[in-house]
Amino acid sequence: MDDIAADPSHPRYASLLMRHRLEVAARKGMLADSAMIAHGRGEAFDYLLGERTTDSAARAARQALATLQAAERPVLSINGNVAALACDEMLQLANHLSCPVEVNIFYRTPERMEAILDHMNERNQALGLTVPVLGHAPDAQIPGLKGPRAACHRDGLLNSDAVLVPLEDGDRCNALVAMGKSVVVVDLNPLSRSAQQGTITIVDEVSRALNAMLELARVEGEVQVDPSYDHAAVLNEGLAEMLASLKR
Amino acid sequence: MDDIAADPSHPRYASLLMRHRLEVAARKGMLADSAMIAHGRGEAFDYLLGERTTDSAARAARQALATLQAAERPVLSINGNVAALACDEMLQLANHLSCPVEVNIFYRTPERMEAILDHMNERNQALGLTVPVLGHAPDAQIPGLKGPRAACHRDGLLNSDAVLVPLEDGDRCNALVAMGKSVVVVDLNPLSRSAQQGTITIVDEVSRALNAMLELARVEGEVQVDPSYDHAAVLNEGLAEMLASLKR
Repeated sequence: MDDIAADPSHPRYASLLMRHRLEVAARKGMLADSAMIAHGRGEAFDYLLGERTTDSAARAARQALATLQAAERPVLSINGNVAALACDEMLQLANHLSCPVEVNIFYRTPERMEAILDHMNERNQALGLTVPVLGHAPDAQIPGLKGPRAACHRDGLLNSDAVLVPLEDGDRCNALVAMGKSVVVVDLNPLSRSAQQGTITIVDEVSRALNAMLELARVEGEVQVDPSYDHAAVLNEGLAEMLASLKR
Repeated sequence: MDDIAADPSHPRYASLLMRHRLEVAARKGMLADSAMIAHGRGEAFDYLLGERTTDSAARAARQALATLQAAERPVLSINGNVAALACDEMLQLANHLSCPVEVNIFYRTPERMEAILDHMNERNQALGLTVPVLGHAPDAQIPGLKGPRAACHRDGLLNSDAVLVPLEDGDRCNALVAMGKSVVVVDLNPLSRSAQQGTITIVDEVSRALNAMLELARVEGEVQVDPSYDHAAVLNEGLAEMLASLKR
C-alpha cells in the first residue's frame, strides 16, 4: 500500500491514497466504527461513475462555488471522513471564502472531537492559513435534531446562510434545509437522502469535488450563480452516468 | 446499534446485524484494515439489488449447490469477512456436504489466522458439528500466486475439484480456475474480476446466498446440475436487476 501510495502513475493511486488517509485518521482516533464502511459504499458508487468528475458534477460544483461565494455567512462543515480525506482542500476553500469551518460529527465523543480539531488546526498552521476552526465550544442546537449531534456554534452553522456539508447524514442535512439555508451536499450516491434533499448536490468523490471548486476559484475568481440551475435535473444526470457505465 | 440488532422487525435489521458481526470480528482480530471498506462496497451493491435474493441469484445458488454436491472433493474457503458474516452457514453447508472448510486469507498474519481458526472451531463446537477446519498447517501452494496468500492444504484446497470462495480476491479466484476446479463465487459486484471469472457466481449477500443453499438442501436434498446453465447469462441478469433498480 505504501509503495503504491508513493507512485502517482499507478492506476489505483487516487483510490489507494484515500484509503491510506483513512487509515492514518483511524490511527489518530478521528473515525467512528462506521467510517470505513461508509467509505466502501462511496468507493462502489465512484467505481460506477468511472472515478472521474462527470459533466453534471462539474456543473454542480460551479453552482456550489457561486452559491457559497454569494452567501453572507457561509460555513463549511467537517466530519471525521471529510477531515481524513480532504482536510487541506476544505481549509483552502474556507480561506478563499473567508469563512470558518466547523467540526460537527454524528457519533460525538470528546476524544473524537479533539482528534479532529487537533488535525484541522495542525493542517491550518502547516498550510500557513488562519481559517477559524469551530466545533470546540458549541453554544447552540440545530432545531429538529436530538442529542449530541444537534450541537453547533451560534456564529457558525446556526446562523449561516449557506453550508457545505460533504458526506453528511440525511437527518442533519434535512434539518439544515428546514432552517432555510442553502445546503451544498457532496455525496457519491445520487439516491441517498442527503443527495436528494440538498439544495445543490455534487455527485463526486469529495477531494475531486473540492479541487474542482478550488480550480474554478483560481482561474475564474468570482463565479455567477445560475438562476436556471435545476437540482433534480443535475442529480438525474448523475444517475444516468452510472446507468451508462453499468451498461458498458 | 445493539438496540436495532435486537429487533428483527427493524427495516435495517439484516444490514445492521451484519455490521454488528463485523465489529465483533474486528475486536477479535479477525479482520484486515480493508475488511470494512470491502463490506461497504458490498453494501452499496446490495442496496442497488434491493437487499434481496434475485431470481438469477436463486438460480445460481441452485447450480452452486448441485455442483458442490456432485463434486468428489469439495472444499469451502473461509476468509476474515466470511468468518465474520456467515461462519455458521459455512459450517452447516460443509456438514451437509461432508467436506472441510479451509481458512485462507489475503493479508496472512499468524495472529489473524489464529483468531479466525479459533472462531471457526468455537462455532463448530457450539453447533455440535465436527466439520474439519483446515488452514492451521498449510503444506502446499496454489500455483501462480506469490507469497503467503498461495499457502493451502494439500488435502484441502489444492486437491479439491470444486471450491466455494465467497468474497474472494480476483487473483486467487483466477488461480483456482486455472487449476481446472469448479469455482463457485459469491460476490455482490457482478462486474468484479472474481464474479466474471468464476464457474458459477451468486450475486447476493453472502449469508442470504448460503441460507438459500441450505434451505434448498433441506427441502430437496440432492439437487441436479443443470447442463444448460449459462454463467455469463446469469451474471448479466444480475446486472440488469441493478440497472432496473437504479431506474426506479
